[in-house]
Amino acid sequence: MKITEFGREELAVLEKELRAEYEKFAAMGLKLDMSRGKPSPEQLDKINGLLEVLDGGDYKTEAGVDTRNYGILDGIPEMKKIFSDLTGIPCDQIVVGGNSSLNLMFDAMMRLMVFGTEGNAPWKEQGKLKWLCPSPGYDRHFGVTELLGFEMIPVPMTENGPDMAVVEELAAKDPAVKGIWCVPLYSNPQGICYSDETVDRLASMKTAAEDFRIFWDNAYGVHHIYEERKLKDILSACKEAGNENRVFYFFSTSKITFPGAGVSMIASSPANVAEIRKAMTIQTIGSDKVNQLRHVRYFGNAENVKKHMAAMAETLRPKFDMVLDTLKEELDGTGLAFFNSPKGGYFVSVDTLPGCAKRTVALAKEAGVVMTGAGATYPYKKDPEDKNIRIAPTYPSLEELDKAIHLFCLCVKLAGVEKLLEK
Amino acid sequence: MKITEFGREELAVLEKELRAEYEKFAAMGLKLDMSRGKPSPEQLDKINGLLEVLDGGDYKTEAGVDTRNYGILDGIPEMKKIFSDLTGIPCDQIVVGGNSSLNLMFDAMMRLMVFGTEGNAPWKEQGKLKWLCPSPGYDRHFGVTELLGFEMIPVPMTENGPDMAVVEELAAKDPAVKGIWCVPLYSNPQGICYSDETVDRLASMKTAAEDFRIFWDNAYGVHHIYEERKLKDILSACKEAGNENRVFYFFSTSKITFPGAGVSMIASSPANVAEIRKAMTIQTIGSDKVNQLRHVRYFGNAENVKKHMAAMAETLRPKFDMVLDTLKEELDGTGLAFFNSPKGGYFVSVDTLPGCAKRTVALAKEAGVVMTGAGATYPYKKDPEDKNIRIAPTYPSLEELDKAIHLFCLCVKLAGVEKLLEK
Repeated sequence: MKITEFGREELAVLEKELRAEYEKFAAMGLKLDMSRGKPSPEQLDKINGLLEVLDGGDYKTEAGVDTRNYGILDGIPEMKKIFSDLTGIPCDQIVVGGNSSLNLMFDAMMRLMVFGTEGNAPWKEQGKLKWLCPSPGYDRHFGVTELLGFEMIPVPMTENGPDMAVVEELAAKDPAVKGIWCVPLYSNPQGICYSDETVDRLASMKTAAEDFRIFWDNAYGVHHIYEERKLKDILSACKEAGNENRVFYFFSTSKITFPGAGVSMIASSPANVAEIRKAMTIQTIGSDKVNQLRHVRYFGNAENVKKHMAAMAETLRPKFDMVLDTLKEELDGTGLAFFNSPKGGYFVSVDTLPGCAKRTVALAKEAGVVMTGAGATYPYKKDPEDKNIRIAPTYPSLEELDKAIHLFCLCVKLAGVEKLLEK
Repeated sequence: MKITEFGREELAVLEKELRAEYEKFAAMGLKLDMSRGKPSPEQLDKINGLLEVLDGGDYKTEAGVDTRNYGILDGIPEMKKIFSDLTGIPCDQIVVGGNSSLNLMFDAMMRLMVFGTEGNAPWKEQGKLKWLCPSPGYDRHFGVTELLGFEMIPVPMTENGPDMAVVEELAAKDPAVKGIWCVPLYSNPQGICYSDETVDRLASMKTAAEDFRIFWDNAYGVHHIYEERKLKDILSACKEAGNENRVFYFFSTSKITFPGAGVSMIASSPANVAEIRKAMTIQTIGSDKVNQLRHVRYFGNAENVKKHMAAMAETLRPKFDMVLDTLKEELDGTGLAFFNSPKGGYFVSVDTLPGCAKRTVALAKEAGVVMTGAGATYPYKKDPEDKNIRIAPTYPSLEELDKAIHLFCLCVKLAGVEKLLEK
């Protein structure tokens, strides 16, 4: 029987039990953190060789360019080749950036604000603009569109990606709707993978704005943990649909090599890449080529990147197992929480009963376990139903995670029972 | 007797001689380049140790932050300390960037365009704007303000920096004049060092625009070759004059370590730094900290940076000697060219007779020596008198430089004599 179907008395008894258990946890003086979507030290140690691969003094590309010096605006050819083989995007549609794909997204947005695209007026001159935000989603995406003054419109997620009926209607009717954030594979935080149909509908839908843009952040494109999910190539789909310039595609090695010192890329149609280069050639003389060469020398090719990610998956699987098994054991059948089982990426997403996310996170915090702030996965950090919580299992050790996720489940239940008793 | 005072017959004879000499050069099939303001391979080799200093697996800052992972928006404290000791700017007014200070300038300009500053309207919303461009100057600076649609106003240079009477008048009378580019030490291309008076006048002058900004690109702040010139601290001067927020100060290790893989910084008043951080925290999770740590471990402190630059000066001095001695021997007293003797930096600047720069560069090119394009040192690449040419002596070998600079002097003379014969 679901806890949500308990009578008041049963609930009162259960609350007492849960609170007693919670007090035991609280007394342990835990200091744990499940908020950080970043690799563990063990993951990073697996790739330290990257930092020594240039030892010995050969700093030239195959074509003989000295990576230490000025030159090459948009990335050394060998780095483009690896990105190309990983993403299926032709090399000449790829522009290599620095250590942050977020920065490439911000820059792309700033260019649209100041210069516009395809002869349309700069976005800064087009009045109040709107942006579609599949939610729950990535807080840093929402941060960019918030800073730039967009009205952010949450779009519900389905198991196949954003609810396309909603997206299509909003995009078609309002020219102020300028674009959409997408994390198409193992979405942050739910781990949802966009279906081929979703990709096709995004590529072919009618948009009232001529300069509607999809910001396609394939942050977890090779971050398979349990099985390898495929993602339909949106650049080709857009081209076939006659909307070749609709997508900016982002990818990086932040969670392949080092979050602090990886290599990022932006890719798009030839016309968009020409616009990117036009501004970029004024903005910089080029990104860090020595670091690109490090990545190229260390991996050699895309196949070895995939092998490395398989090894990363080995490290991550026990952590995801621990979290998912515990959620199942503790919460399945209670009616107090809903979660799906991601096959890759960096997160597990839990929906509590409506109105319980903040309370759950607060309870966890009081007992020494930091979670991502409730609401963080929604535009303006406002979860309309106060129910979504993002769990980041990668950074803590297994032992820490064990304690933390058990406490978390307890907090979900306690907050849920408290809520049911309010009625 | 100056060649400019020759009669027509003497000029005709001289032209014949010069042309014969030129044909000899042209027949040599030279392939030389004096256009590239970048370090030579020998300079870069002096610092290869930087790329191996992290060998061994200790990637943490003194405070225990793992530089490989996410975290720290604006630079590790140790890197700020080195920049602080080199520039005299307090650490908390410094924001560390990636490998390109040009990128920091572009970003600063884009923020002003989109967000404005100190509550003033964004520049993008303020109509047609203007920018002061001390000329000759750095083509990539002018490229930024050109792309952003500023009307660029050239300001003549004096031996103490830009002509301050002109700057003061333009800044005081027109609120559309929003700022000025400055390379205050060993300016590009003339090697001029701003006097204390120039710094004080820039800091204290009245500006019609409340949001007037000085972009202070101290690109050659520690790049002494013959003697160490001091630069007055403009941030303090602005503060004392009650214009604390007037300056953005840029610096980088591009020509200290590697142009392709160095570390940059932007510094400003506390209020401006708060504005920078506000946008930057949305733009990126932080610049490459591993590379910052490399720099910190390799140098240890600012004193060792200065020692390294003294060694760099040893490498560069014979090249600057070669260029300056040859210019003196070949052109002094001819009346056909004017040049000053920089004490540091990366360039030597030559003024030909008016109307002769393009012809000189074309003659050199035909004979196999590439110079920086004539006009490149002026806004819109238009040198109103067609006379300034930038020489970059650092990259070629001494042997190459010897041939190239002799050919260059010959071309200056030939172009000058041709011009005199036109009259």
